[in-house]
Amino acid sequence: MDSRISFSSDYTKGAHPKILQRLSEINFEQIDGYGTDHYCREAADKIKKVCGCPDADVFFLVGGTQTNQTITDMLLEPYEGIVAASTGHVAAHEAGAIEHAGHKVLTILNVGEERDTERYGDSIGKISAVELKKFIDSFYADESHEHMVFPGAVYISHPTEYGTLYTKKELEDISAVCKEYKLPLFLDGARLGYGLMSKRTDVTIKDIARLTDVFYIGGTKVGALFGEAVVFPKGVTVKHPIPVIKQHGALLAKGWLLGLQFDTLFTDDLYFELGKNAIDKAEILKKGLIERGYKLFLDSPTNQQFVIMPNDKLAELKNNVGYGFWEIYDEKHTVIRFATDWATTEQDIERLFEFL
Amino acid sequence: MDSRISFSSDYTKGAHPKILQRLSEINFEQIDGYGTDHYCREAADKIKKVCGCPDADVFFLVGGTQTNQTITDMLLEPYEGIVAASTGHVAAHEAGAIEHAGHKVLTILNVGEERDTERYGDSIGKISAVELKKFIDSFYADESHEHMVFPGAVYISHPTEYGTLYTKKELEDISAVCKEYKLPLFLDGARLGYGLMSKRTDVTIKDIARLTDVFYIGGTKVGALFGEAVVFPKGVTVKHPIPVIKQHGALLAKGWLLGLQFDTLFTDDLYFELGKNAIDKAEILKKGLIERGYKLFLDSPTNQQFVIMPNDKLAELKNNVGYGFWEIYDEKHTVIRFATDWATTEQDIERLFEFL
Amino acid sequence: MDSRISFSSDYTKGAHPKILQRLSEINFEQIDGYGTDHYCREAADKIKKVCGCPDADVFFLVGGTQTNQTITDMLLEPYEGIVAASTGHVAAHEAGAIEHAGHKVLTILNVGEERDTERYGDSIGKISAVELKKFIDSFYADESHEHMVFPGAVYISHPTEYGTLYTKKELEDISAVCKEYKLPLFLDGARLGYGLMSKRTDVTIKDIARLTDVFYIGGTKVGALFGEAVVFPKGVTVKHPIPVIKQHGALLAKGWLLGLQFDTLFTDDLYFELGKNAIDKAEILKKGLIERGYKLFLDSPTNQQFVIMPNDKLAELKNNVGYGFWEIYDEKHTVIRFATDWATTEQDIERLFEFL
Amino acid sequence: MDSRISFSSDYTKGAHPKILQRLSEINFEQIDGYGTDHYCREAADKIKKVCGCPDADVFFLVGGTQTNQTITDMLLEPYEGIVAASTGHVAAHEAGAIEHAGHKVLTILNVGEERDTERYGDSIGKISAVELKKFIDSFYADESHEHMVFPGAVYISHPTEYGTLYTKKELEDISAVCKEYKLPLFLDGARLGYGLMSKRTDVTIKDIARLTDVFYIGGTKVGALFGEAVVFPKGVTVKHPIPVIKQHGALLAKGWLLGLQFDTLFTDDLYFELGKNAIDKAEILKKGLIERGYKLFLDSPTNQQFVIMPNDKLAELKNNVGYGFWEIYDEKHTVIRFATDWATTEQDIERLFEFL
Repeated sequence: MDSRISFSSDYTKGAHPKILQRLSEINFEQIDGYGTDHYCREAADKIKKVCGCPDADVFFLVGGTQTNQTITDMLLEPYEGIVAASTGHVAAHEAGAIEHAGHKVLTILNVGEERDTERYGDSIGKISAVELKKFIDSFYADESHEHMVFPGAVYISHPTEYGTLYTKKELEDISAVCKEYKLPLFLDGARLGYGLMSKRTDVTIKDIARLTDVFYIGGTKVGALFGEAVVFPKGVTVKHPIPVIKQHGALLAKGWLLGLQFDTLFTDDLYFELGKNAIDKAEILKKGLIERGYKLFLDSPTNQQFVIMPNDKLAELKNNVGYGFWEIYDEKHTVIRFATDWATTEQDIERLFEFL
Repeated sequence: MDSRISFSSDYTKGAHPKILQRLSEINFEQIDGYGTDHYCREAADKIKKVCGCPDADVFFLVGGTQTNQTITDMLLEPYEGIVAASTGHVAAHEAGAIEHAGHKVLTILNVGEERDTERYGDSIGKISAVELKKFIDSFYADESHEHMVFPGAVYISHPTEYGTLYTKKELEDISAVCKEYKLPLFLDGARLGYGLMSKRTDVTIKDIARLTDVFYIGGTKVGALFGEAVVFPKGVTVKHPIPVIKQHGALLAKGWLLGLQFDTLFTDDLYFELGKNAIDKAEILKKGLIERGYKLFLDSPTNQQFVIMPNDKLAELKNNVGYGFWEIYDEKHTVIRFATDWATTEQDIERLFEFL
Repeated sequence: MDSRISFSSDYTKGAHPKILQRLSEINFEQIDGYGTDHYCREAADKIKKVCGCPDADVFFLVGGTQTNQTITDMLLEPYEGIVAASTGHVAAHEAGAIEHAGHKVLTILNVGEERDTERYGDSIGKISAVELKKFIDSFYADESHEHMVFPGAVYISHPTEYGTLYTKKELEDISAVCKEYKLPLFLDGARLGYGLMSKRTDVTIKDIARLTDVFYIGGTKVGALFGEAVVFPKGVTVKHPIPVIKQHGALLAKGWLLGLQFDTLFTDDLYFELGKNAIDKAEILKKGLIERGYKLFLDSPTNQQFVIMPNDKLAELKNNVGYGFWEIYDEKHTVIRFATDWATTEQDIERLFEFL
Repeated sequence: MDSRISFSSDYTKGAHPKILQRLSEINFEQIDGYGTDHYCREAADKIKKVCGCPDADVFFLVGGTQTNQTITDMLLEPYEGIVAASTGHVAAHEAGAIEHAGHKVLTILNVGEERDTERYGDSIGKISAVELKKFIDSFYADESHEHMVFPGAVYISHPTEYGTLYTKKELEDISAVCKEYKLPLFLDGARLGYGLMSKRTDVTIKDIARLTDVFYIGGTKVGALFGEAVVFPKGVTVKHPIPVIKQHGALLAKGWLLGLQFDTLFTDDLYFELGKNAIDKAEILKKGLIERGYKLFLDSPTNQQFVIMPNDKLAELKNNVGYGFWEIYDEKHTVIRFATDWATTEQDIERLFEFL
């Protein structure tokens, strides 16, 4: 149908063929529902092992918005909100799912806003421990804070919506502030595989398990048909998580479809291999863009690359290549996004370069 | 793993092989997200054609609870509740998802309760137009009804949770009451394929499209990996359905996974063929049960069969066959459910009979 | 304006004159807002003393629906519902306020329904410990209870919506079941003063404080302009009650208006005296009704009296006396309610008798 | 008790004596509940007349948070948020009541932030039509806006939280943008009386009724014991407002308490007279402050005056005078608020001056 090459996003393709193959193999096995099956158990065990958190609770949900909504609602008291960067996905692009569940998103500056002299550095999209502490302190310093929304948890995405990454030191600092104020730290890893395999990260999945209270390992964008593996490294604190998940419409009847996919992704390091593919291709892409004289909007270390594209060039490109519109840069330029993924090939990049 | 034969439910297996095959075929096609793709359009077109409702709006959601929650919330004003049988799925088994979205389920007697002299007839699980009208009239007759929850929509399931079916006349009567009071009629068709192919129904999918305001065609239990096709035969009334779906966590990023499945199910009448298989096998099962002297709990015309099983027999059965616990019948008997499905074979039934 | 005598309800008049007098006296005193003032403290101290619960937390809210909604929401986890009699106010007459806050009302039979041979005895409107335990046990016995709404707290009203009263033994039994299952017991005392002063009760306010986890002392219907004093005898369990109250729109800016009223009501036993007045007048009313050949619908021990009134008599009565419509009794009779209150006089009763 | 003079806020005193007097006069009149009484009707008629909107619907609610929550929820679809200044009361000081009802507050710059060169002018706290239009346009220009929260209504406060006022031209411009995009305009008039009587306003109550879709006339802060009169000048659009109000816990049983108060306030222009008193006293206060060398934080035209107070002076003041803490100005100064009200006397001001 759509024979154009597309770099519009990292969720435009199906799943790694091993997943489809295993789905076929077990198609007529009769399996118990709602995540109580052995595939879910095995996937959870593999995840707990790779994360180094044997006491974790692992749940498999279907998609990102429902995961962000369900976890946020699990973490917060009704009078609490979740602290996030103003550019965070929960703040901007969930169609109000967080508020629909009754909670305010308390936005703080993202690091890009803080340091506006170097606006398009590799820090845009992140929050800082300093700004976080300042926000919490000023909340409690306000004598009328009982009339305001309490900070109840902290949300970060890694990679962020701009493809940027926290350093281990930054995560440790944020985690320390969270511990100090007893606020659970929630890391949205919808693109976690791409973050972990960046050439420019010192953060491992074990670090994330150690430093956060809950995070999820994105499958939808990293080689699965769909699915997000939610990990509570120290165990889930909600007494009855299953009804909570169900009342958010997030309990899949055939839960094993999720278990099987994550079991496959966490066998023989497939998840990391898929992450690496997108990173390798993004490096080639970035290099080629620079060589061709294109200016990058920011220096992203992951699979999303943002380019300041002349509008006349863009008009031409549109017919041949799928890309993501990001924002207006100036009268003559537009920022667009190219995303590589777990299945991008060198040929794909070369075809793209033909149009650039 | 679980090599026992199981009749515990109709969502224990994967999907019809044609679906898996097509998923493999299009695996690397790059497709737009969130249901805006051509597979969703084609599936919707086929559904609109088979339902005889060219002006319909069709949406593809992932699972039953999320579909029931999202539709209910679309239909109701905040001060309204949904009228349902006391045995209806929304009343009893959604972990409070309806209330979580802010709405009361207004339960009325199911026909089984109404006619208690013939309690276990084939009407249990249904509501009646008479009882519905009585309920609405008595609401408006109450002078303080502005202090009560307004009936805002009517929910029926077809087949019901007990496998029973409405007749065309019954549906017409309920639909007429709904029209009289301007209440949208919502039909939960999680097992619709099995209802439509019953030997004992005069209701077609066109009747349902004609008589309801919204219904869904269950995929999860009838041959799909997952997925429910929501049909608003006269068009959806909510101005912006996409953000509503998204804020319920029900907007799948790779929406085409749903479109493709329903496109397959509604090609060459596959959906109906799969429904028929379960019905045929249920007939054989029922006949065999009666021949073997088992007493049925009710005379179900669809794929769910309910048996009053002696407890000693049950203890023995448990090791060999999966079944669904339904309820305690008396001190010495238990009601259990055997469900056939789109993939049940005669051999499966024969293996079951070996243990009975 | 409305010079007819009215017995339609117990919230048709202003407040005891002492309350108005004190409001005038302190009118220009400048007082801190939101319940942080000394009147609230003094009222709370008096209430804690009369209830024998020095460790209680006391909050003053404005009206019944908001109190029921706020307390219920404080007690429940999101996946929990509140157990109540099918006739309970939270089940039937809050316009869905409980569901609006996300919670299901889990209705069990009221004792009137249980014992239908003696339907109109003095037990209608109550729940029983036996039925409560049966409900909870059957919930946990259901293997799929994680797909249902968990019982999270128990609601009773005393007096009930039918004016009936629990005995001390009944309260102790219900409280014991609640303790066994760790469910907080919530007693709606919108008419508590009338219950406590009934000639036919062995329940004291100290018993209520001992046996419940939260209850409220109704002011609106018992001598205050408005206001309900919420008492958590063992302390409130929510960490930050003020924002919870505020986000339910229930935190009055001039909180002292509530504190002053309850301080007045709990000075020199005024609250009990006002309760007694309504009871004494109800006794005269009931005696007079029986003498005049009227048939009571049930034998209410409190200020609400229910009469089975011939419809022709009713048509005549309507022009002269305000009453509450209750329900259709049969073709020729209607059940109506006469409510006495804290200010009802013997002359009022005599005027009523003139029309009977 | 607290014999200090206080200017901490405008809700520290009871009500105008005429209100207390009338409450006493009608104390034993028996009146129908829930706002169906003649006092509410008469008050509504007077308000409709003074506002020049004979087709208006008027409701009387108890307090500000509940009014903001209830109206917002009435105006919005579930997927919509309310646009407000970042300093707006609904954005900052409702303990999350708006989000608790499921809606996001979409904050835009307040005019003070926009024009930061003149930060402390008389525009802080307001939004501008230009910024509003820009916000809405950029929302619809974003291709993924169906994944974001739709702007569904616009909230302004008049006077704002900083005491500032819109000009008639500014209101007309904002109203025009709202009309263009079919967004209802909601004006929070918690302190409306003080805004209308400012010496520096060209906005009348008729202008407000003409230019907004809903506004409320604050009673709590302007001479009533409590109460806010909500006016929908063109009629309310929700089909059943009473259950909506009730399910927000905002339907007062003795609704006439509100009706009577507003009837009194809108008899012989009392409401305006009370507003004028606060303004006159604020003028004296401001003049005196300037004469005594104090620096104002902004040039407020209403009853709230903000002063940049040296911290050493403040330490001394604290023992003698109640004031409102506003914010830290710099290391040596704090911004505090003095509010005059409907009952402030020249003697009060003089006593304050003794300490300054």
